[in-house]
Amino acid sequence: MMRIKATVAYDGTNFSGYQSQPNMRTVQSDIDKALRKMHKDDTIHSVASGRTDAGVHAFGQVIHFDTPLSITEESWVTALNVLLPKDIRILTAKQVSDEFHARYSAKGKTYQYRWSRKPIHSPFERNYSVHLGKWNPDIERMKEGAVRLLGTHDFTSFCSAKTATSSKVRTIRSLEINEEGHELVLTIEGDGFLYNMVRTIAGVLYAVGIGWDEPRDVTEILQARDRKRAGKTAPAHGLYLMSVTYDQ
Amino acid sequence: MMRIKATVAYDGTNFSGYQSQPNMRTVQSDIDKALRKMHKDDTIHSVASGRTDAGVHAFGQVIHFDTPLSITEESWVTALNVLLPKDIRILTAKQVSDEFHARYSAKGKTYQYRWSRKPIHSPFERNYSVHLGKWNPDIERMKEGAVRLLGTHDFTSFCSAKTATSSKVRTIRSLEINEEGHELVLTIEGDGFLYNMVRTIAGVLYAVGIGWDEPRDVTEILQARDRKRAGKTAPAHGLYLMSVTYDQ
Repeated sequence: MMRIKATVAYDGTNFSGYQSQPNMRTVQSDIDKALRKMHKDDTIHSVASGRTDAGVHAFGQVIHFDTPLSITEESWVTALNVLLPKDIRILTAKQVSDEFHARYSAKGKTYQYRWSRKPIHSPFERNYSVHLGKWNPDIERMKEGAVRLLGTHDFTSFCSAKTATSSKVRTIRSLEINEEGHELVLTIEGDGFLYNMVRTIAGVLYAVGIGWDEPRDVTEILQARDRKRAGKTAPAHGLYLMSVTYDQ
Repeated sequence: MMRIKATVAYDGTNFSGYQSQPNMRTVQSDIDKALRKMHKDDTIHSVASGRTDAGVHAFGQVIHFDTPLSITEESWVTALNVLLPKDIRILTAKQVSDEFHARYSAKGKTYQYRWSRKPIHSPFERNYSVHLGKWNPDIERMKEGAVRLLGTHDFTSFCSAKTATSSKVRTIRSLEINEEGHELVLTIEGDGFLYNMVRTIAGVLYAVGIGWDEPRDVTEILQARDRKRAGKTAPAHGLYLMSVTYDQ
């Protein structure tokens, strides 16, 4: 058996999220279906760095799977892309050691959140950014709020109240906010993220940007350790899993 | 009654083309449904500069309709966009004289056709450009073929054999081919286009670009006045109606 690591891009619009669910179209079930076809109906389960919600996109999700097939790395990319629907693309495939695990070996993740400042949201971007409409977030206020999240904190206020993880302590290594053309883009990198954490951070910084909250409120929300203090989770379709980093 | 001219952008992916058809989702039927809601269930029919096929996109389709409502041009944009699905957006609305007709007053149209040179087609671009894959069209050959189409010609070879128009003579005023990042883009402007004409031209120039045909064959195809000589129509999802020009 060989272990293959692959990077995967997908348009989350028409999926009920990443993780397999009965009778739902998910990214994982489509990938596992393609793997099954390549393995003459033997079931091969892929493991991802983590799940993403319905509507969330990925430029660089990472998966691994074990296979008895001995084909080149390039052929894995080509063969899987022939079998996969066009809203999922395998970008790279690489043989790795048995110790590599897409989820447990992950050292960090980068996400982006995108808002559009166009007066009228382009029909071609409707699923790929969140329209600001008449709202005009002040990027300097957002940055002042953002620095308060840098470093290691208990992010209880910033994850779904349903989150069952033992520790809610995470480290945010960088958090940048930039204007890119007509888009306002938040880029966040950390050792890992709790369920709904990036979308909750996006929602809080948006509220600071449009003046509903003050930058200093971000510290108070963090210290409260109470999800109710953080307000609305930003919509799924503005969020992109950009990359996952590993030692190998 | 007032006549309103509006420019409309739409993502053609999820429509069975522009023109209303029974039991199909079309751009026209969605626009007329929104107009009907604004007019308290009175039927208002919009007229477009021309139809587009299933999968074809528009940045600047133009329509007109007549209305007894007296509201500002800005309010037309806002109100229609509230009622329309997000894959159709009204970009501008303007009151015009009764002589203006979206179809009959049109003096010219510009279309673009987009191919992607990325080794792997981005899942985010799958509906918005045609993937070239291993094919690598030579832009200089395509340009050499393109100049042969400039000017006034009988385009019988370049339109669907089903076309019932009395005259198949049209004038192409400009035809440019450019590399834009990873995309190969054909931009064509003329006084009007026959059914499938731009997609047939795209197909012929693509065949010249990849070496299946010679640039001089374009002249022969034109002179043959036979649709069979022009080869495959290029796929719908690479095509965009960019703008329609009028005297007023």
